Amino acid sequence: MVPRASVRDELIESAVEVFHARGFNGCSVQDIVEAAGIPKGSFYNHFKSKEALGVEVVRAYTRLVGAYLEEAGAGEIFSGDGTPLERIRAYFEAVIEQNVSSGVRKGCLLGNFATELAPHSAEIANAVTDALDNWSAAVARALAQAQEAGELPKDVDVEALGRYLVDGYEGAAARAKLIGDRGPMDEFIRTTFDFLLA
Amino acid sequence: MVPRASVRDELIESAVEVFHARGFNGCSVQDIVEAAGIPKGSFYNHFKSKEALGVEVVRAYTRLVGAYLEEAGAGEIFSGDGTPLERIRAYFEAVIEQNVSSGVRKGCLLGNFATELAPHSAEIANAVTDALDNWSAAVARALAQAQEAGELPKDVDVEALGRYLVDGYEGAAARAKLIGDRGPMDEFIRTTFDFLLA
Repeated sequence: MVPRASVRDELIESAVEVFHARGFNGCSVQDIVEAAGIPKGSFYNHFKSKEALGVEVVRAYTRLVGAYLEEAGAGEIFSGDGTPLERIRAYFEAVIEQNVSSGVRKGCLLGNFATELAPHSAEIANAVTDALDNWSAAVARALAQAQEAGELPKDVDVEALGRYLVDGYEGAAARAKLIGDRGPMDEFIRTTFDFLLA
Repeated sequence: MVPRASVRDELIESAVEVFHARGFNGCSVQDIVEAAGIPKGSFYNHFKSKEALGVEVVRAYTRLVGAYLEEAGAGEIFSGDGTPLERIRAYFEAVIEQNVSSGVRKGCLLGNFATELAPHSAEIANAVTDALDNWSAAVARALAQAQEAGELPKDVDVEALGRYLVDGYEGAAARAKLIGDRGPMDEFIRTTFDFLLA
């Protein structure tokens, strides 16, 4: 017997969808409980506020993207076929496929929340910062492998470069969202790996 | 006698401030007319909707940033002291100073609107796309000068690189907004000009 997801988990799952599609301020608690098919009265049994739900949504979105990347084999950023830089490229290509699969017009929820909410919710800003920091640090570890393998100069600050690539991806995802086309993200890959790091 | 700004211009000026600080969906028409000190009734004499005002806000914000850059001498991206790449660096440094001067926590209004509004308003998305395209094209023209001067390889796609740098700046501005610190934007400059294009 498959256990029924808890009401709390159902609310988080619906809110990932609704916040991603409409933005945090573009929807109400009412919209989220309706999408989850749950009576509004029970919302506040599970979350003290829409903001508290927003924090859980950031974490759930990060897990969801991570699960997609595992499934796509792009958890292999640290080992597997190819050189470290080839694996980093394949990893960002998988990140882009995940973005496209959920709808390029929705963008990256982390980037959306960063620009929409940072000044208004310290809790959500901290959750997004943690997610981007962890992500950047993982890319930096893979860049350190590329450095070890002689694909990058010895004097490169791989931590800074990891943040740079994540920020660059976020900027490209924002423009892709803007025009409703994955082109800017694909161009991000080409410019990074065929020119800047080639 | 200094002519009094028109009611329409006052509404746009207030809306730049209010949208920039609070996001499009984070404020109401009421908030904007209050900030402008104008009766709500007259709003719809000047704009058919909040969205129509949003389009004008994108254009006004772009002019405002442009005026700051002119003032800072960073209109000199195409001529003046230094090599083309040095001028492009100085130009992005001035863009960052403008961002910081208006409050790093507000971010770049173009990036904010891209992530918040792209799927919900074709008119605003088009205005932001135009602004980013014009900006990227200006950077690309300066990069072509760098290429002419032998600072970049002959086979670089300067149009793509112009978009890459603008997207990278937007991603860095989003993370700066997130943490309330200009650091990510300064790091964007160092990684771009001290490493990737050095």
